Amino acid sequence: MMIIMHPGAPREQVDQVIVEIEKHQLSAHVIEGVEQTIVGAVGDGHSIPKEIFEALPGVMAVQRITQPYKLASRQFHEHDSVFQLDGFSVGGREIPIIAGPCSVESREQILEVAQAVREAGAHALRGGVFKPRTSPYSFQGLGEQGLEYLVEAREKTGMPIVVEVVAVSQIGMMQKYVDAFQIGARNMQNFNLLRAVGETRTPVLFKRGMSATIEEMLMASEYIISAGNTRVILCERGIRTFETATRNTTDINAIPVLKRLTHLPVIIDPSHSTGDSSYVAAIAKAGVAAGADGIMVEVHPNPAHAISDGKQSLTPQAFAVMVKQVRAVAEAVGRGLVPLPQEKVVMRTDAGA
Amino acid sequence: MMIIMHPGAPREQVDQVIVEIEKHQLSAHVIEGVEQTIVGAVGDGHSIPKEIFEALPGVMAVQRITQPYKLASRQFHEHDSVFQLDGFSVGGREIPIIAGPCSVESREQILEVAQAVREAGAHALRGGVFKPRTSPYSFQGLGEQGLEYLVEAREKTGMPIVVEVVAVSQIGMMQKYVDAFQIGARNMQNFNLLRAVGETRTPVLFKRGMSATIEEMLMASEYIISAGNTRVILCERGIRTFETATRNTTDINAIPVLKRLTHLPVIIDPSHSTGDSSYVAAIAKAGVAAGADGIMVEVHPNPAHAISDGKQSLTPQAFAVMVKQVRAVAEAVGRGLVPLPQEKVVMRTDAGA
Amino acid sequence: MMIIMHPGAPREQVDQVIVEIEKHQLSAHVIEGVEQTIVGAVGDGHSIPKEIFEALPGVMAVQRITQPYKLASRQFHEHDSVFQLDGFSVGGREIPIIAGPCSVESREQILEVAQAVREAGAHALRGGVFKPRTSPYSFQGLGEQGLEYLVEAREKTGMPIVVEVVAVSQIGMMQKYVDAFQIGARNMQNFNLLRAVGETRTPVLFKRGMSATIEEMLMASEYIISAGNTRVILCERGIRTFETATRNTTDINAIPVLKRLTHLPVIIDPSHSTGDSSYVAAIAKAGVAAGADGIMVEVHPNPAHAISDGKQSLTPQAFAVMVKQVRAVAEAVGRGLVPLPQEKVVMRTDAGA
Amino acid sequence: MMIIMHPGAPREQVDQVIVEIEKHQLSAHVIEGVEQTIVGAVGDGHSIPKEIFEALPGVMAVQRITQPYKLASRQFHEHDSVFQLDGFSVGGREIPIIAGPCSVESREQILEVAQAVREAGAHALRGGVFKPRTSPYSFQGLGEQGLEYLVEAREKTGMPIVVEVVAVSQIGMMQKYVDAFQIGARNMQNFNLLRAVGETRTPVLFKRGMSATIEEMLMASEYIISAGNTRVILCERGIRTFETATRNTTDINAIPVLKRLTHLPVIIDPSHSTGDSSYVAAIAKAGVAAGADGIMVEVHPNPAHAISDGKQSLTPQAFAVMVKQVRAVAEAVGRGLVPLPQEKVVMRTDAGA
Repeated sequence: MMIIMHPGAPREQVDQVIVEIEKHQLSAHVIEGVEQTIVGAVGDGHSIPKEIFEALPGVMAVQRITQPYKLASRQFHEHDSVFQLDGFSVGGREIPIIAGPCSVESREQILEVAQAVREAGAHALRGGVFKPRTSPYSFQGLGEQGLEYLVEAREKTGMPIVVEVVAVSQIGMMQKYVDAFQIGARNMQNFNLLRAVGETRTPVLFKRGMSATIEEMLMASEYIISAGNTRVILCERGIRTFETATRNTTDINAIPVLKRLTHLPVIIDPSHSTGDSSYVAAIAKAGVAAGADGIMVEVHPNPAHAISDGKQSLTPQAFAVMVKQVRAVAEAVGRGLVPLPQEKVVMRTDAGA
Repeated sequence: MMIIMHPGAPREQVDQVIVEIEKHQLSAHVIEGVEQTIVGAVGDGHSIPKEIFEALPGVMAVQRITQPYKLASRQFHEHDSVFQLDGFSVGGREIPIIAGPCSVESREQILEVAQAVREAGAHALRGGVFKPRTSPYSFQGLGEQGLEYLVEAREKTGMPIVVEVVAVSQIGMMQKYVDAFQIGARNMQNFNLLRAVGETRTPVLFKRGMSATIEEMLMASEYIISAGNTRVILCERGIRTFETATRNTTDINAIPVLKRLTHLPVIIDPSHSTGDSSYVAAIAKAGVAAGADGIMVEVHPNPAHAISDGKQSLTPQAFAVMVKQVRAVAEAVGRGLVPLPQEKVVMRTDAGA
Repeated sequence: MMIIMHPGAPREQVDQVIVEIEKHQLSAHVIEGVEQTIVGAVGDGHSIPKEIFEALPGVMAVQRITQPYKLASRQFHEHDSVFQLDGFSVGGREIPIIAGPCSVESREQILEVAQAVREAGAHALRGGVFKPRTSPYSFQGLGEQGLEYLVEAREKTGMPIVVEVVAVSQIGMMQKYVDAFQIGARNMQNFNLLRAVGETRTPVLFKRGMSATIEEMLMASEYIISAGNTRVILCERGIRTFETATRNTTDINAIPVLKRLTHLPVIIDPSHSTGDSSYVAAIAKAGVAAGADGIMVEVHPNPAHAISDGKQSLTPQAFAVMVKQVRAVAEAVGRGLVPLPQEKVVMRTDAGA
Repeated sequence: MMIIMHPGAPREQVDQVIVEIEKHQLSAHVIEGVEQTIVGAVGDGHSIPKEIFEALPGVMAVQRITQPYKLASRQFHEHDSVFQLDGFSVGGREIPIIAGPCSVESREQILEVAQAVREAGAHALRGGVFKPRTSPYSFQGLGEQGLEYLVEAREKTGMPIVVEVVAVSQIGMMQKYVDAFQIGARNMQNFNLLRAVGETRTPVLFKRGMSATIEEMLMASEYIISAGNTRVILCERGIRTFETATRNTTDINAIPVLKRLTHLPVIIDPSHSTGDSSYVAAIAKAGVAAGADGIMVEVHPNPAHAISDGKQSLTPQAFAVMVKQVRAVAEAVGRGLVPLPQEKVVMRTDAGA
């Protein structure tokens, strides 16, 4: 049972709810959101009437949720969650495209990609600066220097930046730079990291673990939301199966399954889910046709020389073609792409001169 | 190396090619197609010049193929294979939809479904009469009686019928009834069955095994083609993974991968690949967006009372909605649905009166 | 519910049981075994008292079975099934070892391997003559000629022979030669083939499909048993997973799981389950430690030149070492190896002279 | 190439090696171990003669390693690594058993289990105090209080304690209590955490991720070793597959594969790898038969009332039976269990009075 307090309900009213919860041998879990406080009553409470809580002062509503995830569930929040990511909406009718290189490799590289993907129709810029590489001997990212380059790219193009965080200790520093945190597949069940980004108010692009079930993904997202940060974007990025023709297997089923189970926006990453630039456009289109709320793709000015993930990176030219195709499919399913802010594009062009 | 003989090349010319192949310590594999004979030279022949064979009488062309599958490969046949299925083309720009119940349950049921899916826009009718059921105690199908009902449905609606074959001994009898054989997932590597349908000239709808790699699927299709039957339609129907939220995991990546590797038509079966009628339309659209050449879906007049696969069967109403959505996506990717033969629809309406 | 008739119960008593079953809206499934007839009452019969059937003439016992597989279930047959395979028992305290090449390649090869594995301690000889190969262009086996060589090897060594059957049409011919049929992984759900071997009285070594669940394997074995052939040996041979360090993943858990669920003997095939001769002995020992009732391994006199599966084949020397190690582990878990029939070994030595 | 410096080689000699490495366009990776410094030359150095480095002052040896993991590889360290864990050896001929509850639930619970498993033959005590639970609303562990109870149990029984660490921030505090860190499956690729435990000198029990390949596991262990901590114990704990009869699929193949590829000790956790106490003893025996260097099992005084993982926990009685069986198998494969320190057991009995 989730007990939703009125906005501004004083602490003593919350405490009263907690006392009532514990009186019924349940445990109380207080979630302090930006706008209001929610108290979860965890345990087997199906025989306790909702009215007991509804009658308490400060209580706005009480919801029973049978799913193991609560705040992420459509039972808790019936309508699609829509929220802003620096200038455009995520989760609404219009679909944003997030693009950029796997790793920020240099100032020149990220500025070049940023400009190219913006011109081709991207809405946000991705780029890794702390890379969770399989080998400790591989390139581990440019760190804070890379963030400065990304900020410069944002200034030149007007695109918000999405950057992966891999350690709790980076969060404070990174918050000064990024518009959205990315949690990568390897950290999907790094619960300390999830709680820590949950305590910020920065949106989180949350990737599915490569062998996580859809339910585990939703449970893990609950760590972020229950810490108070409701702006979570779920991202299908392929799962590990026996098939070796592609790097991962895109779980396209996950798109409609997630859209049914949760109110959170759901996007698709066809670059990681295929691992091969030849298939990225086809799977981007498939994702949108299946109901995805957005796309994240890897683009590199020179894929053959990328430090990481070159094989799956589109050239800017191929990306531009993909954007057109995705737009057509989006319109065929009654949606569209997020319109580009023309004035910012103009600014970027100036800056590039 | 594949040595393609001129149409009508006499047997002695073929024999001369075989002698030459064996002279180089390769083994010869003769494929007698409807139109022409092809002789495969199997073994490590990369150091043998093509010219040796090109110079022999009756030889039209010689192709080196590095893929382990030969006749199914795009290296062997560069352009998409397009062939007729009783009145419409498969593999071309226009997409057909095959629909019908999992099992033929009764005359009334199959006639009702056939009429409903035809009205909603289906091009071919599916229906199982020999069911490979997990349990020997489950309903095993109506057998030849079911085929007679299907033929009646074909007469009333004008739709060709696609029926699963599960045993070599059924082939002769079934050929008198069906327009296309279906090979089910469980029989994808039942090589005797594949060879036997390969010896007929009836088109084969060939489903991927639930844990077969894409390469294994193509190798298995080679059993059919190398026996002389080139009219093979590949069908992605979901693979087995750890995810339990859906019955199978649709391997959407397989669509563009197959389209790159083979010239054969590739269709998608969103009913089996999801196992849940709620997700069928989303995945049908995704399949077409990813490049599928057709769709096969299960439709039942009363899914809750279906003998098999009710959970994944669409109602005729839901199917009609899906057809409209799929048409829009097909057009968005530069294709369309196969046009319906209006006159036959009229005939059906008469018959139904 | 399974209604077990007295041995020799006349047909009219069986018919009376069927009438009673159908009176309760269940369907009757008659299983005519060698010794007695069993009538399965399939459907939801949980509210029908057993006594109704127990009171009918000719009925020996009535059992409720909640598992979806019936005759394979330990609920149906509490104690381990033990049966003879030409001279030794399978399923008892003592463990047999089945060894031999993947394919019978020539008379010399099979006689050499047979003698070598017999000397090293094998109890039965395996060897394929109809090979279900991934590619239609690969060696497909020696066919009936290979069976003749196997029979000669049996005469020289005294070992029964186990040979894979891949088509219904081969059964009649093969029955004249083989002591046990093998059903391979690719045919685990080839239900026609299962029913057909079920109609023989030849023991069946039944391999798990590479992506079959344990429950599906038991359900499939039910096709054989319900056709009247109760002498089924289950074989774990590895499943398909994401791990590529080995050809398959040995599902060692399947050994104790199967031993709990079924009374049938359970053996392990460490050659296919690892795909690498370096690991075969370790996994053979693990299988016996986990409770396996037998082992099947591939042995080839010259693995580097084997036509198929050379990488996973042991040399006769390595096999002899493995037998000693397996014996020690078998004894550590309170079992032992089947004793070798010394007199037959003597005969073989004579024949070899 | 790994350049191993003489113990005590001064920093300027190390620097000279680095200069030489970079002269050849490779990058240098300095690993400061307890005893000696190793400098990895990362990049394509196969054409650079070893002699160039061998000639430099302070260089003891130079090794080429073709595996992507270096320090974990048997190419780097040919013989099995053996190291002490507070009173007994890990990685040698004798096998230790680590036992205890999933979670420390209370002082009484952990003292009771510790005493029981010690009496039954355990060598080390496990118990979680920070639990990475799928749901944020589940019990998350007793934290530092739990560590104090574990220390009390260690004092009473003489067993070293192994405790999972889930966050970098816990390491400093935990080091004061634990004898070995455990890295859980969900954190196998939490590279920051790996580097951080790598900077300690506390042994690390390192569990395989549930969908990690063997190679990825070894690469991840390299993060710990390359940070200077060579005392890493690898633990197979089951992988995620399609099979649902058990919680995970024990990858028994991984035991001999790992023993071939790495010098690190390899243990098995049959509790997590099966998820069912009925199968734990069988799989523990299988693991030892396959070559495992140790066992870790969950034991709870009252599994039915365990807060977590009750289904897979052995009772102390069942654990005692398992120890006897495992001992017999260990002896059958030429090994044995680590002898129990009798005097400490006596002390514990006193303390318990």
